[in-house]
Amino acid sequence: MLAELRVTPVGAQHEDFAEVVSAIVRTIAERSHLQYAVNAMGTTLEGEIDEILAAVRACHEEVRKHCTRALVELSLDDRAGAEGELVRSLDHLRRFGGGVPLERLVRAR
Amino acid sequence: MLAELRVTPVGAQHEDFAEVVSAIVRTIAERSHLQYAVNAMGTTLEGEIDEILAAVRACHEEVRKHCTRALVELSLDDRAGAEGELVRSLDHLRRFGGGVPLERLVRAR
Amino acid sequence: MLAELRVTPVGAQHEDFAEVVSAIVRTIAERSHLQYAVNAMGTTLEGEIDEILAAVRACHEEVRKHCTRALVELSLDDRAGAEGELVRSLDHLRRFGGGVPLERLVRAR
Amino acid sequence: MLAELRVTPVGAQHEDFAEVVSAIVRTIAERSHLQYAVNAMGTTLEGEIDEILAAVRACHEEVRKHCTRALVELSLDDRAGAEGELVRSLDHLRRFGGGVPLERLVRAR
Repeated sequence: MLAELRVTPVGAQHEDFAEVVSAIVRTIAERSHLQYAVNAMGTTLEGEIDEILAAVRACHEEVRKHCTRALVELSLDDRAGAEGELVRSLDHLRRFGGGVPLERLVRAR
Repeated sequence: MLAELRVTPVGAQHEDFAEVVSAIVRTIAERSHLQYAVNAMGTTLEGEIDEILAAVRACHEEVRKHCTRALVELSLDDRAGAEGELVRSLDHLRRFGGGVPLERLVRAR
Repeated sequence: MLAELRVTPVGAQHEDFAEVVSAIVRTIAERSHLQYAVNAMGTTLEGEIDEILAAVRACHEEVRKHCTRALVELSLDDRAGAEGELVRSLDHLRRFGGGVPLERLVRAR
Repeated sequence: MLAELRVTPVGAQHEDFAEVVSAIVRTIAERSHLQYAVNAMGTTLEGEIDEILAAVRACHEEVRKHCTRALVELSLDDRAGAEGELVRSLDHLRRFGGGVPLERLVRAR
């Protein structure tokens, strides 16, 4: 099952989220066996539902060490028979997407 | 401003989203100047609010050509003075994240 | 802790979600002790994190009986010391919101 | 078209969101003709896409007066031919939901 997790410290002392975000990524990396990929707005995950919910639980616990208020947002996309989607979905777009590039990291003119 | 956009065709004839997803990515690539990066659950964007909302408008129009019902989800993260975050936020994590890897594409043992 | 849960059957035979939505609400009502309030786009919840995640688990199981693909979206807003927010937050707005109405169910002219 | 909007001030001086939330609700009430209903986690909306996106634009502008960082989250659910859903969807559940209550504001024993 694919998922995306976004954790936002709200009542933090300072606004730079880097320390909290790396603590969250470390939690996923070290306290789960999930596949994951960090993006600029969250982390995509792949695994079974119980393991995903356990990771959400652990990340929630972690973020609350850093702040008095936190938002935790989870999106699950569960499709019968789908596996390996974290890699496959992007490969599929590369092959069958008619050549549209999957990223543009400088502003188009 | 950073954003993430997720477009899900609901009332589609078939369940494989690849065709719709590539039409959405093409819409962002060709009808906006936004920076973007596709991930397995959506597309992160960077640009000004008016351009982001115009892209949401165009993607909504596009997805409704393919299905009778669609979900469109937009998250904006607007921080004063932040620019170039689509690239910088991940670079920052790589440098100051204490060595935690930003992705793991095979299941951990 | 406050939360909102949205469950969307994607690969369903038909597009009317009412049957699935009532099965989801029944799952929350009968298989949890959470406080909840259904709105047109989801269900707000209040309770402890373990009970919320257990309800997400049960609702996910329920929705997948009805369709081959489902989206499940959970937002948690956890604030230290906050309790009774499902009712209190709206009461607070009614009292201190300067008279702005909390709903308008017919289109403004 | 149904929508839900959630606006979260992040880099605010204080953590009580009530002032910001009432400014957001006032923006929707006074600067749009949309139908709306406030819940504990956001505001459901109904109207045309251009009017919804204009309201998102106005609410974003408003929240940034109160803080240096803000999250704005919009979910659109657009179904061909659906109108009056803000009221109808809940009525439908009341009639055909098999008697499941749409809210429980005290904790179940």
